Amino acid sequence: MNVVITGAAGFLGSRLANALLAHNSKISVARLVLIDLIQPSPYNDPRVTTLSVNLADPSAVDLIIQPDCHILFHLAAVLSGQAEVDLDLGLRVNFDATRALVETARRRAPNLRFVYTSTIGVFGGNLPSVINDLTAVTPENSYGSQKAMCELLLNDYARRGFVDSRIVRLPTVSIRAGTANRAVTSFASGIIREPLNGKFSICPVGTAQKLYLTSPHTVVQNIIHAATIPANALGSWRVVNLPGICVSVGDMIEALREVAGDQAASLVQFEQDEMIERMVASFPSQCDYSRATSLGFAVDKHFIDIIRYYIRDDLNASN
Amino acid sequence: MNVVITGAAGFLGSRLANALLAHNSKISVARLVLIDLIQPSPYNDPRVTTLSVNLADPSAVDLIIQPDCHILFHLAAVLSGQAEVDLDLGLRVNFDATRALVETARRRAPNLRFVYTSTIGVFGGNLPSVINDLTAVTPENSYGSQKAMCELLLNDYARRGFVDSRIVRLPTVSIRAGTANRAVTSFASGIIREPLNGKFSICPVGTAQKLYLTSPHTVVQNIIHAATIPANALGSWRVVNLPGICVSVGDMIEALREVAGDQAASLVQFEQDEMIERMVASFPSQCDYSRATSLGFAVDKHFIDIIRYYIRDDLNASN
Repeated sequence: MNVVITGAAGFLGSRLANALLAHNSKISVARLVLIDLIQPSPYNDPRVTTLSVNLADPSAVDLIIQPDCHILFHLAAVLSGQAEVDLDLGLRVNFDATRALVETARRRAPNLRFVYTSTIGVFGGNLPSVINDLTAVTPENSYGSQKAMCELLLNDYARRGFVDSRIVRLPTVSIRAGTANRAVTSFASGIIREPLNGKFSICPVGTAQKLYLTSPHTVVQNIIHAATIPANALGSWRVVNLPGICVSVGDMIEALREVAGDQAASLVQFEQDEMIERMVASFPSQCDYSRATSLGFAVDKHFIDIIRYYIRDDLNASN
Repeated sequence: MNVVITGAAGFLGSRLANALLAHNSKISVARLVLIDLIQPSPYNDPRVTTLSVNLADPSAVDLIIQPDCHILFHLAAVLSGQAEVDLDLGLRVNFDATRALVETARRRAPNLRFVYTSTIGVFGGNLPSVINDLTAVTPENSYGSQKAMCELLLNDYARRGFVDSRIVRLPTVSIRAGTANRAVTSFASGIIREPLNGKFSICPVGTAQKLYLTSPHTVVQNIIHAATIPANALGSWRVVNLPGICVSVGDMIEALREVAGDQAASLVQFEQDEMIERMVASFPSQCDYSRATSLGFAVDKHFIDIIRYYIRDDLNASN
């Protein structure tokens, strides 16, 4: 399979590349093109090419979609915090670039499996306490609005047979290694990662705030799985809410305390940020993901395990 | 108030213009600009200007949105049948032109009340037997997909304070006077209108097919009402399913028979059209419109009354 990843220099994009190149990958990769605004670091693997591409550039699609491309993982996006500050940039990258990609796929690579990472941030407003794949999408943030517009477009292109799209809505990913990003949920990694690294971390929301989380390992598995399931298994609505776990910020800090002690837990400091608080409060925190599990998507178990995996796999690497 | 209507030469657009210019109009109109692809017929009213504008033309927005414009009724669209045949045209007119309008409003007339006529065709797929304003939007037609994308965009612009948008999802309008149009639901008018005019009419779906209908009079009242309700009454989701009545094609023909006799009813001939049948079957036929009525939108009573109003108001005019 010839595979392309956009956003490949990002945290999820680079994990996804590693997983696809691993011996036990569910997809047999002949060629892997890694694309990001800043050229991804070179890989010591003859299958890999890295490219610097600005998605906002109209010629970007020509570099990304080749007729012999089998799977595109389109992860690149302007994240929720930045999209809320700059509507135009968000529309250009999150919507226009995705549309240009799917339109180019239609013309040039109609059998392409187009895996699109949407977000549970498409949900907002007057939500039921537990959402599912048929909960109405009434976003209260621009990032979620733009992603939801792409879902509709990609689903319609799939329905018409123009591209084989598969759309997964990602829970908040925690614990991301590395540094803070411009997602409004960035703190959901920071409040664990920074204390484990001996640093203070600012939490912009209260301890009662509940989050819908997935571990990096599970979400990367699930993004790959989206490319491998038979298209007709998805039915006429190709959008799936990925499994996640519901935890409160207070629960997360208690799990941190249990694993790393009072000293670590005391490094979390609370400093309210109204924009973040409002946006995060509008996201769902519980989801009936039975459709996802029936399609074979994986599920995390306990947040404390996610902390332990982070310590085992990432703590030294990110120090 | 300075008011603009796009799609003003169409059936609803011209009724809307007439209603706004009437003595008893709920909106006091100082100036009314009527815009369509083909210049609307001149009005014998000094308040009215008519313009021929192609929405697909990038300069269209400059003609439509003036800084002193108070209300825009954006009705112009490529209809469902045509949007299904020509995806690109549908995207250009139904999505791109609407986006250009809202973006121009943001820059030039941020207090504009932007009334957008969406459709119950945004719904499709695995629907509950009775939908409501919080039923998930999973369209199975390109027209509905494009309208749903506009809903998200307009709602986000409103949330950010860039435009005062109000979005109403129209039921199938029946009985439209005049001739068939390119909506897949055009037959829902034709099977009554043509027999009342002594003509044969082709019905492309079976008698059991249920439809969600509104009369022209009620829907025009409701489109105007959308411009007059306080913005905050809509809350954070500015999309409302307009009230309609649920009737089967068989019920409609029986009502025709009751009003106009067996001879009229026998003029309806059945000739299956798979595309129309599939799309119409994907639309909802019943809706809990309690949010709409609590916002003051009007409701039709019986389909037989709609036939009688058509005979009283339109039959001679359309002969």
